Amino acid sequence: MGLECIQFSGSLSGEIVQKTFVHPELAADEVAVKVTHSGLCGTDLHYTTTEMVLGHEAIGVVHSIGSDVSSVKVGDRVGWGYPNWTCGRCEWCLQGEDNYCPNWRIYGLADFEQGSLSSFSVRKEQWLFKIPECLSSEDAAPLMCGGSTVWTPLVNHVKPYHRVGIVGIGGLGHLAIQFAAKMGVEVVVFSATESKRDEALKLGAKEFYITQNIDDHSTLGITENIDRLIICTSAKLNLALFYPLLNPQAMIFPLTASDGELAVPYFATVRNGLHISGSVIATRFMQKKALEFAARNGVRVIAEKFPMTLDGVKAAMARLKDGKMRYRAVLSWD
Amino acid sequence: MGLECIQFSGSLSGEIVQKTFVHPELAADEVAVKVTHSGLCGTDLHYTTTEMVLGHEAIGVVHSIGSDVSSVKVGDRVGWGYPNWTCGRCEWCLQGEDNYCPNWRIYGLADFEQGSLSSFSVRKEQWLFKIPECLSSEDAAPLMCGGSTVWTPLVNHVKPYHRVGIVGIGGLGHLAIQFAAKMGVEVVVFSATESKRDEALKLGAKEFYITQNIDDHSTLGITENIDRLIICTSAKLNLALFYPLLNPQAMIFPLTASDGELAVPYFATVRNGLHISGSVIATRFMQKKALEFAARNGVRVIAEKFPMTLDGVKAAMARLKDGKMRYRAVLSWD
Repeated sequence: MGLECIQFSGSLSGEIVQKTFVHPELAADEVAVKVTHSGLCGTDLHYTTTEMVLGHEAIGVVHSIGSDVSSVKVGDRVGWGYPNWTCGRCEWCLQGEDNYCPNWRIYGLADFEQGSLSSFSVRKEQWLFKIPECLSSEDAAPLMCGGSTVWTPLVNHVKPYHRVGIVGIGGLGHLAIQFAAKMGVEVVVFSATESKRDEALKLGAKEFYITQNIDDHSTLGITENIDRLIICTSAKLNLALFYPLLNPQAMIFPLTASDGELAVPYFATVRNGLHISGSVIATRFMQKKALEFAARNGVRVIAEKFPMTLDGVKAAMARLKDGKMRYRAVLSWD
Repeated sequence: MGLECIQFSGSLSGEIVQKTFVHPELAADEVAVKVTHSGLCGTDLHYTTTEMVLGHEAIGVVHSIGSDVSSVKVGDRVGWGYPNWTCGRCEWCLQGEDNYCPNWRIYGLADFEQGSLSSFSVRKEQWLFKIPECLSSEDAAPLMCGGSTVWTPLVNHVKPYHRVGIVGIGGLGHLAIQFAAKMGVEVVVFSATESKRDEALKLGAKEFYITQNIDDHSTLGITENIDRLIICTSAKLNLALFYPLLNPQAMIFPLTASDGELAVPYFATVRNGLHISGSVIATRFMQKKALEFAARNGVRVIAEKFPMTLDGVKAAMARLKDGKMRYRAVLSWD
């Protein structure tokens, strides 16, 4: 169709580059989206050394649709995250667990021309989500990956009477506090620094503990133990330190894409029936429900705003890399 | 009441000693049981250096009952395992998760005169279980701890269409194979040695793989990946070796009471939604159901038999310590 766009890509040297691209004719199941906003996530940093268009927390407006597309129409406000397509036929798709489809096409592995740091992107209809009217695009963008990543374990494994610990306040953590608090549970935040206390309490935390340089967490003075521990920090965690704070049968969710190994205390895990549970992004169903919940309950992103320009992208990436973002970048064409 | 009994105890030197003991009058909620059989478990070895009566996989016949006892009567065949008493009032008891009661009285922590390596033992009514008629005492004894430990994760987390991996054939593993196979699932056994292949297949395994000295488990030639991995070996496991054999969302159950740490691959756990789940013995409900299931479906213990004498106890302990037991010791007064 000759739809020309501006894109911001990684490169082998790690320098972010601006280029133009002309999208080919839409396939029957494709949708061209005029991007308006994009969040920025730790994995985007990882891909700055790959020759691919960056960004995967996208909000935009439908510009045109392929001949078979029926779930969105021109002018709809839509979003997308990591996946672009799943097969619909494997055992995980059949169970609705399409976030584990082994055949999927996702950011970083396929569709290198279709990142959200661009003016137009062409997506499969399948993994596009309509954005609820009362959710701003700025609030919605980070929910397309970071937000739905914290939502999934909360909605699957937290009961209304649990005490939920959140480790680390950042892009994921500040959303996890809100989602959990708005589910009505007691939220306990563990942070390296005092400086985030007021914000954590304002977001809905009931208790706040500073863990930096504390070798014995039983000295933190926590009032009651924790049932679910959501690990939102990308720093390597000394999990054993948190064990004295956990109730029997507690579940621990490491959510960040870290390398290396997590050292799990053997006997205490068996004896107390603890669970370390991996969890990745969200199914399509859960992504839809995360957006609806956030809209209904007023989950709000605390964002630093950047223009969708080469300088804006570079500045946002640099700040993310320095660990200084409070708490999520949102870039926009506005 | 002056019920005199013979007991086999640990001692500070680690030597097993025989002694006599006179049980005091029964409390209202207590039951005197004439022990007939006892299994032997790795944790019994651990307590040979403690001054306590050993043994916690007990079968016997009710000899006399306290004034408030109503669930068993004189002459009933009963069994017991690790716990003797739980509080009934804590949040775990209220949920029926009484195997996590923080106030419990269990083997090794309380009631040091009441092990199963004895002629009579006095137990609280609460954690005594009637043994189904068609289950022999020899088959029932090891189900009071080892059997119910493997039963719990299977019944809680295995669906009939799962492929279940069992790592290690021993006291726990040979029961896990049978429980899983009799639930109708495909059982895949991983063993150090070829010598147990025939027995594993006879017990119900569909596939058998030798893992000793294999550094890349993807070379084992496994036909399809595994959904649940039950770790029954007490040797330290290199968990990462099994990761290529696991389906997305697989659950891993380390069941042995090992020290140290389990090294969990971080990114693969998050990316594939894997779960490492601690699990300890059984609730009262699950213990009852394990016995009923074993009786109905013919779960049979492969036991080496020893007389309940000082020499018999010493011989069984020595063989267990050497890792030579095939697969569970059962001592009896017969």
